[in-house]
Amino acid sequence: MDIFERIRNNPGPLGQFADYAEGYFVFPKLEGPIGPRMIFQGREVIFWSANDYLGLCNHPEVLEADAKAAAEYGMFYPMGARAMSGETDQHQQLEQELAAFVKEEAAYLLNFGYQGMVSTIDSLVTRHDVIVYDSDAHACIVDGVRLHMGKSFTFRHNDVESLEKNLIRAEKVAKETGGGILVITEGVFGMRGMQGKIKEITDLKSKYNFRILVDDAHGFGTLGATGAGVGEEQNCQDKIDVYFSTFAKSMAGFGAFIAGDKEIIRFLKYNMRSQIFAKSLTMPMVIGGLKRLDLLRSNPSLKQKLWNNVNKLQNGLLERGYDIGETNTCVTPVMMKGDTIEATLLVRDLRENYGIFTSVVVYPVIPKGMILLRLIPTASHTDAEINITLDAFDAIHEKLISGQYKKQAEAFLQENNLTFKES
Amino acid sequence: MDIFERIRNNPGPLGQFADYAEGYFVFPKLEGPIGPRMIFQGREVIFWSANDYLGLCNHPEVLEADAKAAAEYGMFYPMGARAMSGETDQHQQLEQELAAFVKEEAAYLLNFGYQGMVSTIDSLVTRHDVIVYDSDAHACIVDGVRLHMGKSFTFRHNDVESLEKNLIRAEKVAKETGGGILVITEGVFGMRGMQGKIKEITDLKSKYNFRILVDDAHGFGTLGATGAGVGEEQNCQDKIDVYFSTFAKSMAGFGAFIAGDKEIIRFLKYNMRSQIFAKSLTMPMVIGGLKRLDLLRSNPSLKQKLWNNVNKLQNGLLERGYDIGETNTCVTPVMMKGDTIEATLLVRDLRENYGIFTSVVVYPVIPKGMILLRLIPTASHTDAEINITLDAFDAIHEKLISGQYKKQAEAFLQENNLTFKES
Repeated sequence: MDIFERIRNNPGPLGQFADYAEGYFVFPKLEGPIGPRMIFQGREVIFWSANDYLGLCNHPEVLEADAKAAAEYGMFYPMGARAMSGETDQHQQLEQELAAFVKEEAAYLLNFGYQGMVSTIDSLVTRHDVIVYDSDAHACIVDGVRLHMGKSFTFRHNDVESLEKNLIRAEKVAKETGGGILVITEGVFGMRGMQGKIKEITDLKSKYNFRILVDDAHGFGTLGATGAGVGEEQNCQDKIDVYFSTFAKSMAGFGAFIAGDKEIIRFLKYNMRSQIFAKSLTMPMVIGGLKRLDLLRSNPSLKQKLWNNVNKLQNGLLERGYDIGETNTCVTPVMMKGDTIEATLLVRDLRENYGIFTSVVVYPVIPKGMILLRLIPTASHTDAEINITLDAFDAIHEKLISGQYKKQAEAFLQENNLTFKES
Repeated sequence: MDIFERIRNNPGPLGQFADYAEGYFVFPKLEGPIGPRMIFQGREVIFWSANDYLGLCNHPEVLEADAKAAAEYGMFYPMGARAMSGETDQHQQLEQELAAFVKEEAAYLLNFGYQGMVSTIDSLVTRHDVIVYDSDAHACIVDGVRLHMGKSFTFRHNDVESLEKNLIRAEKVAKETGGGILVITEGVFGMRGMQGKIKEITDLKSKYNFRILVDDAHGFGTLGATGAGVGEEQNCQDKIDVYFSTFAKSMAGFGAFIAGDKEIIRFLKYNMRSQIFAKSLTMPMVIGGLKRLDLLRSNPSLKQKLWNNVNKLQNGLLERGYDIGETNTCVTPVMMKGDTIEATLLVRDLRENYGIFTSVVVYPVIPKGMILLRLIPTASHTDAEINITLDAFDAIHEKLISGQYKKQAEAFLQENNLTFKES
């Protein structure tokens, strides 16, 4: 069958809802400066979906650094791939400062986090090696593993016992192939906010021979005494073999970095296809990155403010009886019971009538019959915004459990002669 | 074997030369504003390795647009993934203008070209489909094909007869699996400058049922009457099913776009993993992109200036008897005979004593015994710079054919008690 004919017949899991959802549930347009109050469809909403944890994205010194660098260098500098024509003193300086900050020997900047992670995995393993990774790992990890020609096993999400079982399987394979084992997991799981059990996992190194790559996108800047991430938080940074973080969360930018032993980072620098064959990270993000890192290190009050807000929000939710799962990070999931149509009506109600904008996650990302509202508190949110949100949650939750959304949904379906099946 | 032990023992094809080559042959540092004259190791060189074809990267209006957008939005705007919180009017506007410019129904911005291409391929095919692609395709195409679970065939570089043979093979497979065929090639091959034979390839659609994805990184802005790329140049844009170009060449930035039929672009928008699960293209590049596209469309003199320079350089080389292969684009390869050590000494001589900086390509990228010096002329180069370069080429070529570099190499090897084998 012609490829386009197939595509026209089946627009995919998200695409099938495009006509109804686009502009509202997917591809919503948030306007105005990024912050706890943004404009959605012409009205102000309290916004809980920016990963700008420390509130750096609009910090005057950050905007100034970005603008000054853009005026001097534009967005093209430095030219091409890092290895060909994309090397600068500033790239090297940011790498040295990042390595020192996360207490690793060396760091290397990545032109984009997603492809950076894909190529990190791709470069670290040969077909003889075995990958063992968390079943809830981010799409970029999954795509990296998909490139792997050898064996790979998943372990049950954040389950050290399941990991150990799979390490035993992996050891058997590696013994036959002569390869090694790479474990991949995350510092913080972005959906439900659990920290990866990095300490317990790296303790298994006394029993099994493996290397571990940790994606700490949500941990960098938010966890650990100095904000150096999950390794610092769990006191096991020295056991993390390759540490990865994006700049798209606490660093309020884009691009990413990896850090680890000098020889390993050098190897990656010379072998990552997405870095060897594509453009170096743009200069304004490098100079702007130096500024962000400086502010992050020298203003512990930002992280303090963030955690005050996290605690206020999470304690408020717990006091009011909400299920926020096992989060032990800033990521705040609120779990409710309901189907996908109820979730839609609930989110619409929350936006239209309470002025609260959150992301919502439903089946098949989470089990059937569950609604997950995900809140990302930042250092910029105020007590008032937290309280308004908590009250709004009480109001919509009451409607949900009293069956009001269900009734609305049924009426709507009947009116339009539609049926709905959770698929 | 432990993964790190293997890595320490074998730093990879490029990495093994790191100690000798870093900072000079790989990861060289070019300083000062991007342009035909840059600073390399403290001295001015004529620089032939920036893909800034139209000279837009330092255009005052471009720098102003980038800086103004960075001052207003910073580098983080708009927040997250396009589908989640990364949609803006400006993204949509740039897409509409790009689509109109390349005469396609719709366009979609990509947060980075490399991963954008990988995910475009990944989304277009299922395991039942067959990919047929040029054997010299860029690394991002290769990585996209590596994700494919079904069959794939390569055809001999830019060889339509070989493509046809492989289409026949692909049709047999597709008949069995019920899948379709996706042909992938490039508008311009960046190493040796041949245009992809897009017209001839798309003419095969009358005999075979396939879709074609074209990576026109070097064609966009440089080819066709209006600069709309290889499809315009060869008068077959309507036969290109998915058109891709990066912003990292003529558009003097980063990021990329795809363009094609509305329904297909919509499908890709809803299904490309690197776009659904990673940050939207940063606002300064979008606003800066609008400015660049505007300049590109409204100043045909830029492309005229570029081609004047291309013609002067290429005619000058031909008149002096150099082999510049079959280039029919701006990319200007100069082929000489010599081994890798000679190439090294020649490039060093060219940089140190003639002040000319070019990239050099040797075995295994090209056949053994060949040296390829790659020149990228831009609209910013002057006649003087072209003439100095031509004279310098005569000087180093004379030394090469007279065996001077060979003698130097042998003396060096003997002095240091080394042997060299082209590996």
